[in-house]
Amino acid sequence: MTGLNDLPLRPELRGKSAYGAPQLSVTNQLNTNENPYPPSPGLVGELVEEVRRLATTLNRYPERDATELRDDLASYVSTRTGVRVTRDQVWAANGSNEILQQLLQAFGGPGRQVMGFTPSYSMHPILASGTQTEFTAVPRTGENFDIDVDAAVAEIRSRRPDIVFVTTPNNPTGGVTPLEDLRRIIAAEEEVGGIVIVDEAYAEFSDGPSAVTLLADHRKSLVVSRTMSKAFDFAGGRLGYFVADPAFIEAVMLVRLPYHLSTLSQAAARVALRHAGETLATVAAIRDERIRVEAALVDMGYRVVPSESNFIFFRVPFAGTETGTESGTGTGTVADAAGPAGEPGVSSGEVEPDAHEVWQKFLDYDVLIRDVGVPGHLRVTVGLPAENDAFLTAADKIIGEYK
Amino acid sequence: MTGLNDLPLRPELRGKSAYGAPQLSVTNQLNTNENPYPPSPGLVGELVEEVRRLATTLNRYPERDATELRDDLASYVSTRTGVRVTRDQVWAANGSNEILQQLLQAFGGPGRQVMGFTPSYSMHPILASGTQTEFTAVPRTGENFDIDVDAAVAEIRSRRPDIVFVTTPNNPTGGVTPLEDLRRIIAAEEEVGGIVIVDEAYAEFSDGPSAVTLLADHRKSLVVSRTMSKAFDFAGGRLGYFVADPAFIEAVMLVRLPYHLSTLSQAAARVALRHAGETLATVAAIRDERIRVEAALVDMGYRVVPSESNFIFFRVPFAGTETGTESGTGTGTVADAAGPAGEPGVSSGEVEPDAHEVWQKFLDYDVLIRDVGVPGHLRVTVGLPAENDAFLTAADKIIGEYK
Repeated sequence: MTGLNDLPLRPELRGKSAYGAPQLSVTNQLNTNENPYPPSPGLVGELVEEVRRLATTLNRYPERDATELRDDLASYVSTRTGVRVTRDQVWAANGSNEILQQLLQAFGGPGRQVMGFTPSYSMHPILASGTQTEFTAVPRTGENFDIDVDAAVAEIRSRRPDIVFVTTPNNPTGGVTPLEDLRRIIAAEEEVGGIVIVDEAYAEFSDGPSAVTLLADHRKSLVVSRTMSKAFDFAGGRLGYFVADPAFIEAVMLVRLPYHLSTLSQAAARVALRHAGETLATVAAIRDERIRVEAALVDMGYRVVPSESNFIFFRVPFAGTETGTESGTGTGTVADAAGPAGEPGVSSGEVEPDAHEVWQKFLDYDVLIRDVGVPGHLRVTVGLPAENDAFLTAADKIIGEYK
Repeated sequence: MTGLNDLPLRPELRGKSAYGAPQLSVTNQLNTNENPYPPSPGLVGELVEEVRRLATTLNRYPERDATELRDDLASYVSTRTGVRVTRDQVWAANGSNEILQQLLQAFGGPGRQVMGFTPSYSMHPILASGTQTEFTAVPRTGENFDIDVDAAVAEIRSRRPDIVFVTTPNNPTGGVTPLEDLRRIIAAEEEVGGIVIVDEAYAEFSDGPSAVTLLADHRKSLVVSRTMSKAFDFAGGRLGYFVADPAFIEAVMLVRLPYHLSTLSQAAARVALRHAGETLATVAAIRDERIRVEAALVDMGYRVVPSESNFIFFRVPFAGTETGTESGTGTGTVADAAGPAGEPGVSSGEVEPDAHEVWQKFLDYDVLIRDVGVPGHLRVTVGLPAENDAFLTAADKIIGEYK
């Protein structure tokens, strides 16, 4: 039988395994930060009618530049952020992964470098690797995994990255980078002639202002990436977008695959945007649940990182006091940093509890959460109240085992 | 205002313009090789019901590996080619562009080289450029633009490409590369340790056997890429796939974006495959029309390249006898090689008619065809009978102007 090693694969891919959280069939799926509320009947009905109308055109290529969808996204962003944004400042693709890949193709690539503050979204180094961009990790610090802005500015000045990623609210840790800190990072990156991509995948779950409010002051250097996968209840629809100066849209049009967004993707996203009001009501419910779950975990004795997202990053029972900043997410590998087949994180000594062991205990209670490879920590998505109850019941029993 | 030159774009993208055929509103759109027959009412009805069923799951990520869709594609390929193919030999993505990009990421990339026989699909060099793979063009020869297999084998031995693209039926010229010739090209490429990607986007329009029949003999070196955009009436759905040894599927799983295929894309493609019988009946109608249009063009005095696809490549009136093999499609640029904003081809002397001028004359008759940048030649998609009549009426008037 032919194996991967029999093929002339690129050398840097040899020995890697594919990325991905395990897609297990578990009652309480709290591992991928989805919105647990299904789309409303109104949205479903409208989508069905839209598909009926458009299905007879499926023999034709889609509108290549998705202009109507970009109009609708611009209108949504304007309403949410208070910054008037137009179609020519917005670009859309199949999920924010494709958005970020296109930006890396245009502004990264061989001989160029992207800096990230880890732990953060584990796809950032993988996307860098896939576009031959060197990924440089600067560790977040403290028990809340914040960016040390003085250190960040110093690293930018010394390493001169072509691109800087800032995820806020950060995944997997949940906290936000304040606008003043973002301004300093952007200013430092402007000094070295690079760009900053602010990844706001979880923006709707935060009360803080969007980095879109900074665009007017940083037209040549700032891109704000967003997604409809999380708050927007649309993970299955695959729709990411970015907001930036029109020149950035011109730039990605040089590297995007023609007709990258299908007729159905464009139409479904437009329907979802028309129902933004209903969807964002579920976001409010999720935030209420997040506050409840955080408080309950703290009551049980868990240490929790304050979150402005739809997930909670918590320390497993009896973890040491040092926060783990070495993580499988910062290495640029394609390895599964997420589950049983992956890298469960580097244990830093005998007192360090094994996060992966605790992850397995939750799974034994029929609760699937996420081991992102940060020592001593796990991430749980805020789900429906009953799912959160199941998680909390498991959490209570598990901490009891360690007492 | 910020311009593209104010951004730190990769140097090789500077001065490029975005790829793409013009999306003009014209009565007779015969420029992008779509199937002109809309999906059947049965297909539309079933798709609507499937969307109704799945829409309530859109808050969840899609099934990441598209296993059910790959089962259905395997079954379709088995039926069509007579070769039993299973899910683990099939991979799917958003159009064959994404398929080819993933293969280039895994087997091409910086320091590697891909060879193509030009003129051919104009995205091949663009995809190479987007993945930092060097594109080497070997010109097709003769008035029918066939691959000179002796020359091809010699070029492979001397340049030792990591990947060879063979498009058959070839776009834009329409002819096929016989299986015996393919075998020789694959054998030569095996000698140098590389792989051959046979791009069969138009396979269903040809009577010839598929390169899938060669897979058993060339497991480590052959990938057959296909699409649902053309024969399958599904350009708007964006679904490409490849068939190869399971090791190739493992390879692209290292570079694909997680959740690259939306829930709706997977479902719609499955519905389309269930209606393959109806769709392929339209393919038979298109082939009949192709034969009629070819004969009519020849009667008028046009020289036509024999086609086994759903388009016809023809010489514009009073073109010289030398065939043009220098083309904008072989240069690896992102430039529009397709229309009014693009490169109308290099004129080889005073007798060489301007293909772009003739393209414009067709447009003046409300018939949009394609100028692919090959001197003295234009490509017309076979459409509905009435569209083909409009094209032929225009063709007759235009050749009259030159008499």
